[in-house]
Amino acid sequence: MKVNVAANILAANDSIARQNRDIFRGYGVLVINLMSSPGSGKTTILERTIDILQGQVSMGVIEGDVYTSRDAERIEKKGIPVVQINTVGGCHLNAGMVAGTFEKLPLGDLNVIVIENVGNLVCPAEYDLGEDMKVVVLSTAEGNDKPFKYPAMFRKSSAVIANKIDLLPYTDFEMTVFERDVQAINPEINIFPMSARDGKGIEVWCNWIKQMSEAKK
Amino acid sequence: MKVNVAANILAANDSIARQNRDIFRGYGVLVINLMSSPGSGKTTILERTIDILQGQVSMGVIEGDVYTSRDAERIEKKGIPVVQINTVGGCHLNAGMVAGTFEKLPLGDLNVIVIENVGNLVCPAEYDLGEDMKVVVLSTAEGNDKPFKYPAMFRKSSAVIANKIDLLPYTDFEMTVFERDVQAINPEINIFPMSARDGKGIEVWCNWIKQMSEAKK
Repeated sequence: MKVNVAANILAANDSIARQNRDIFRGYGVLVINLMSSPGSGKTTILERTIDILQGQVSMGVIEGDVYTSRDAERIEKKGIPVVQINTVGGCHLNAGMVAGTFEKLPLGDLNVIVIENVGNLVCPAEYDLGEDMKVVVLSTAEGNDKPFKYPAMFRKSSAVIANKIDLLPYTDFEMTVFERDVQAINPEINIFPMSARDGKGIEVWCNWIKQMSEAKK
Repeated sequence: MKVNVAANILAANDSIARQNRDIFRGYGVLVINLMSSPGSGKTTILERTIDILQGQVSMGVIEGDVYTSRDAERIEKKGIPVVQINTVGGCHLNAGMVAGTFEKLPLGDLNVIVIENVGNLVCPAEYDLGEDMKVVVLSTAEGNDKPFKYPAMFRKSSAVIANKIDLLPYTDFEMTVFERDVQAINPEINIFPMSARDGKGIEVWCNWIKQMSEAKK
C-alpha cells in the first residue's frame, strides 16, 4: 500500500512537471535543477555564474531550502529576480512548489532559470520539476566514493560540477577515480571541475550554460 | 490525505522503535544513531572510535546506505560485528530495518551499537530507530550556516561532531558562529570539534561514549 501511495504522489508530480515544462518552453527559457548535498557550494556557484553571465544572459533563480531565506538573500544582492521556497521540513522540491513561483517571476524576460534544490543527495533526484536538465554538485571534501553510493542523482544529471578543487591537496579525493566512476554510471555526463571560491573552472561552465540557453530560444 | 499517510507511517515506525528500545535496554547496550550529510566523515569517525575503544568497549555497527556495502567492508576490517542495510533508493533508515538486523548481531555481547544512517541531513531526523541518542556530524567544509538551515537534525541530537577541523584554514567556517547557532537551537547539545583524519578530538569523544555506555549497563 505504501508503494501505491508513493507511485500516486510521483504520478501527480510528473503531471504538474509536464505543465511546467510546457510553460518554460513557451517562454524559451532554459531551466536547470541544481542539486547536491548540503554545503557543496551551490549558492556560491550561482553567485559566480550570475556575475559572469551578467549582460549576456538574463537569469532568474528559485531557491529551495528547508528553512531560512539566507540563500535567496545572497542571490537578491546580485540584482536578479529570485523567489524563495521553504519546504518547512520537506526534503526536496516538487513540481507544484515550482509552479507556485510563476506569478512572482518575469518569465517573459528570462533566458535561464536555475532552481536550487534542497541540500540532499537522495530525494530530489526522484522529483521532476519540469526542468530541461538536472545538474549535480559534489564537493571534493565529500570524497570520490559518492557516485556509486548515490547513483540516481548522477544517472539523471546532464552535468556534474566537482566543486572545491582548491581543497584537493588537503583531502583524499581522487579526481581520476571520480571521473571513471561517474562515467560508469552515466557515460553522457559533462564533468566540470571547479573552485567557485577562487573562480577556477567557472568560465567553462558559464560558456556551456550560454550554449544551452541559445539552443533553447 | 498525504499528511495522514505520513502520520500513519511515522506512528507505525515509532511503535517498532519502542520495541527496539526495550530490546536494547534488556541487553544494557547503548545505541547511537549517527547522522549527517554525505561525505562528512561518519565512517572514518567510526573506524577511529573502534580503534580507540578496542578492549574497553565491545562495539557493533549497523551500516545504512542507499546502495553499496563499501562502508560495512571498511568496518568489517576492524574485526567487529557489522550488518549492512541497503535502502535501495530510500533516504533514511527506519525502525523496522533496524529490527531486521537483531538476529545477525550478538546483542548479548555488545556494550555499544552505532547505527550509521544514510547520508542525508533532512529525513533521518524524523525516524526514531529505538536509539538512546542521536549524534549529528557536520564537516567544516559544509559551512557554518547549516544548523539554521537544517534545524531538526541539530534540535534532536545529543551531540554534534564538527569534523574536518584540519580544513579550517582553507574554508570560511567560523567555529564560534557555528557553536553559537547550534546552541541557540539546542542549548543542551554537546559539541565535539574533531579531525577524524588526523585523530584530533577523537579521545574526548571516545571518553564520552565510554561514560554513556557505563551509565547504560
